[in-house]
Amino acid sequence: LHSTNPSLRRFNFNPLLSAKIRELQFTGMFAMTERGHGSNVRGIITEARYNQSTQEFIIHTPSEDAQKMYIGNAMKGNYAAVFAQLIINGESQGPHCFIVPIRDQNGVMWPGVTTIDMKHKEGLHGVDNGILIFNNVRIPRENLLRKFGSVSADGLYSSPVLSKSSRFNAMLAALTPTRLGLTVHAMAAMKLGLVIAVRYSHSRRQFGPKDQDEVKIIEHQTQYLRLMPHLAAALSLIFTTRYAAGLMDDALCQGQDLQSNRALQALVAGLKAYSTWENVTCLQDCRECTGGMGFMMENRIPSLKCDSDVFVTFEGDNMVMLQVVVRELLTQYTKLMGNNLVMGLIRNWTSSVSDSLRTSFLGFSVDKVGDLMFLLKAVSYRERVLQRSLASRLYTKVKKNKDEFFMAWNACLHHVTTLAMAHIHRVTLEQFALAIRECHIKEDRALLNKFCLLHGTSLLYQERAWYLEHNYLTPNTSRQIRSQLLELCRSVKDDALKVVDDFNIPSCCIQAPIAGVANPRAEWAFYPHSTDLPKAKSTHLSLC
Amino acid sequence: LHSTNPSLRRFNFNPLLSAKIRELQFTGMFAMTERGHGSNVRGIITEARYNQSTQEFIIHTPSEDAQKMYIGNAMKGNYAAVFAQLIINGESQGPHCFIVPIRDQNGVMWPGVTTIDMKHKEGLHGVDNGILIFNNVRIPRENLLRKFGSVSADGLYSSPVLSKSSRFNAMLAALTPTRLGLTVHAMAAMKLGLVIAVRYSHSRRQFGPKDQDEVKIIEHQTQYLRLMPHLAAALSLIFTTRYAAGLMDDALCQGQDLQSNRALQALVAGLKAYSTWENVTCLQDCRECTGGMGFMMENRIPSLKCDSDVFVTFEGDNMVMLQVVVRELLTQYTKLMGNNLVMGLIRNWTSSVSDSLRTSFLGFSVDKVGDLMFLLKAVSYRERVLQRSLASRLYTKVKKNKDEFFMAWNACLHHVTTLAMAHIHRVTLEQFALAIRECHIKEDRALLNKFCLLHGTSLLYQERAWYLEHNYLTPNTSRQIRSQLLELCRSVKDDALKVVDDFNIPSCCIQAPIAGVANPRAEWAFYPHSTDLPKAKSTHLSLC
Repeated sequence: LHSTNPSLRRFNFNPLLSAKIRELQFTGMFAMTERGHGSNVRGIITEARYNQSTQEFIIHTPSEDAQKMYIGNAMKGNYAAVFAQLIINGESQGPHCFIVPIRDQNGVMWPGVTTIDMKHKEGLHGVDNGILIFNNVRIPRENLLRKFGSVSADGLYSSPVLSKSSRFNAMLAALTPTRLGLTVHAMAAMKLGLVIAVRYSHSRRQFGPKDQDEVKIIEHQTQYLRLMPHLAAALSLIFTTRYAAGLMDDALCQGQDLQSNRALQALVAGLKAYSTWENVTCLQDCRECTGGMGFMMENRIPSLKCDSDVFVTFEGDNMVMLQVVVRELLTQYTKLMGNNLVMGLIRNWTSSVSDSLRTSFLGFSVDKVGDLMFLLKAVSYRERVLQRSLASRLYTKVKKNKDEFFMAWNACLHHVTTLAMAHIHRVTLEQFALAIRECHIKEDRALLNKFCLLHGTSLLYQERAWYLEHNYLTPNTSRQIRSQLLELCRSVKDDALKVVDDFNIPSCCIQAPIAGVANPRAEWAFYPHSTDLPKAKSTHLSLC
Repeated sequence: LHSTNPSLRRFNFNPLLSAKIRELQFTGMFAMTERGHGSNVRGIITEARYNQSTQEFIIHTPSEDAQKMYIGNAMKGNYAAVFAQLIINGESQGPHCFIVPIRDQNGVMWPGVTTIDMKHKEGLHGVDNGILIFNNVRIPRENLLRKFGSVSADGLYSSPVLSKSSRFNAMLAALTPTRLGLTVHAMAAMKLGLVIAVRYSHSRRQFGPKDQDEVKIIEHQTQYLRLMPHLAAALSLIFTTRYAAGLMDDALCQGQDLQSNRALQALVAGLKAYSTWENVTCLQDCRECTGGMGFMMENRIPSLKCDSDVFVTFEGDNMVMLQVVVRELLTQYTKLMGNNLVMGLIRNWTSSVSDSLRTSFLGFSVDKVGDLMFLLKAVSYRERVLQRSLASRLYTKVKKNKDEFFMAWNACLHHVTTLAMAHIHRVTLEQFALAIRECHIKEDRALLNKFCLLHGTSLLYQERAWYLEHNYLTPNTSRQIRSQLLELCRSVKDDALKVVDDFNIPSCCIQAPIAGVANPRAEWAFYPHSTDLPKAKSTHLSLC
């Protein structure tokens, strides 16, 4: 890797570089988002023009909207992976990724690079986010990451991916592993919040029967109703994340490119959206359920909230993630229908009628509402109906009425996001159910089964209006679902202590005094672990 | 006001004191909550024993659970209004309020008083919350606030309120004005969040039809669907708060004691719960709808969120507030039934049947769903049915099955909180509708009307499962409600800019660069006000 520009040598890749990266002497940054384009990455406007005479790319920020924004480590890092439109002889080949030096080890800026600190944020104070501006920054030709396209010395572009659009999608597939990583982060925050809120709810007392001891706040119906569904959802997310990680490992071991695995990308996108939103609502409930104590920094929940709030936005805004999910679902749907949407709709109409017959039957048979099978069928039915009706609506708008696609899609956006959530909900319930099958210890299995029923019941309860609209639930079974939710939440509230212990988070990471971990700086906040529950045999589950 | 204890003179009330308070030379604190008792104030255990020989009260913290906690201004204030059990000759007369000196102007602590800093919180960093501990602190007899009970020099207790329980309620009524104040605070945060999110949504662009300009993000269906219902709710809260403030002014002008006005207390409690929760969800949506920009401190939303999050907890936890509302609703109900609950239930059964006939008719007549009258009847019907069924459930549990009251109440707690929310929702929709009548400018009236319809539609949409369960909505009208919600949100999205301007928040208070108010410390965040909307004639509404 040689450059004709002698000043570049200082930054050139050499055998020592990877060692320096490993030892954190060099740190990097990921520069995709621009001021003008966050979600719409395809529209980024940073330019990388190839200059054949020097065999360099000229990285340039042509306008304010092209400034790279929110870049983590912008104020300290040495190199940036910069996404820019690759332009050869005035023609753009779409976004590609370039390694651009930002500053050397002594902090001396690379010529033409400017960084601006974006200062204070709601959370994540350990990351300094900033702006990168490039004024005709010269980098060697070799600094283009060549997986999806390369430029020869004499300026010829070649790519293993022919269509520009597929190339762009392949580029974005690189985000899939980090999105899964973000799900793991969100779940870590959520689990920690639950440990703290569940333990405190089992030690704090308030109100009670006349002339008797006050009861633990977990005994209040509203308290267990607020916390237990989140715990069930957390378990479902643990199993679904393992499933997704397994698929990803398999794909990578088999040497598959992630970009060709659209189904996995969609799964991870949906998981990212569901887990990060579930985390936000869970932590908010943990905060409220721990009252004033939950507002104190010492008890961790505020910082967990503030740090993880932005997870719904970065690595792909959740609203965009849901659209990624649905694009894949519609693609599958079209394939299934043999590209003949009209025939498909008709064929499906019949199965839709039989669906509705079968399910009405179940719907009227009250005692089945408590079966996991009923819940699994319900979430799957909902996904299918939403998918079919969305396909039909889009078909009418685009094919029949010749509406412009963006406009048609936007008019269905609420439907789109509803379908995406229905999809990922279904997957989490299925993965939870499959995980129970893998569990061979009877008591643990019974415990998981209760939480799995709770998760399914909670999913149906949230969407019971939809099921009523589709006569899948009768008014009576819908009320039954509510009673079942209350009863399941009540029945798992004591098990919850065991389950949060099985998250296996060490005390030094829990820290919160109200979770029974003393903190010498805030002795006043300490609430000892509740000891008046019969010491439960801990489970053999590994939920970390 | 003389004390036999010479050292007390330093702190004695004298004509200069009120001047010193006005000039903030002396500041105070409100010390009700204890470590062991936050929501359950009746159970506080700080003691105020009368010592007849010195004509003093001895204020004492008998245990760790009796420590006064979360006390605002604890580290700087001079006097505290301390709630303690008033004990004479070993007998408690229940909680009373005492003025206790904490430290003098030079910061010298009053003998026996210890304060501990509770350090960092999620927000409200301008208030230092701390712990107060009293070790046999002596205060003059006159420092008992005497409105609800006084002690003569020779130790005789007298009170204008005979029953201990009524006396306790009277004491708590003092919180009513501050709870209304808190509602105003929550609305201020919410309005500011909406100004920022609505303006940014009207200037930021992302995605769009092929080969055309990208559209403003407010055009995305999910964006207006997330923001507009909050704006409608904010308007309803403005009008309802004015109504409650009017009632309070009237009561105070007529020399009424607030403690006897249980209906007003319940209204304010419900308003406190609804406004503070609505604020939390609204600001969260504002944060998410403004993406990464909304995560930056410069754009205000993070600090609004962190400061106002605790509003759901303090001045009475929202879960407790909802129970205050329902206690009042049940009292009214019992009065209405002439104390004969069984007769009442039967009498109501008939009106319930006619209700259901009338409303089924409306329910099937699709074109009426868009009438405000339909929405008003629906929210009122829901409240009545929930009230009646709760009364009946409690009657069965307590009177028939002889269940212990706390246990019976707790088993219905989800029903209780649902009824309370249904009540306050109904009140806000009614007050919104009444406010429109007062508006005599045609255009403004039309504008308000749309937002009022939106608020009502959004309330029904949230609870459509309940309406379906009760056959108040048919599957068809329920779908109609969803379309109506989407359509109303779409139709007000441009008016929203006018409405947030009518909040009349000065630019110096808005500050956020993404709301079009430049900040020299964060030039990068500036988004100029959108100028490509036809300059709308601003309304004559006063919404500040």
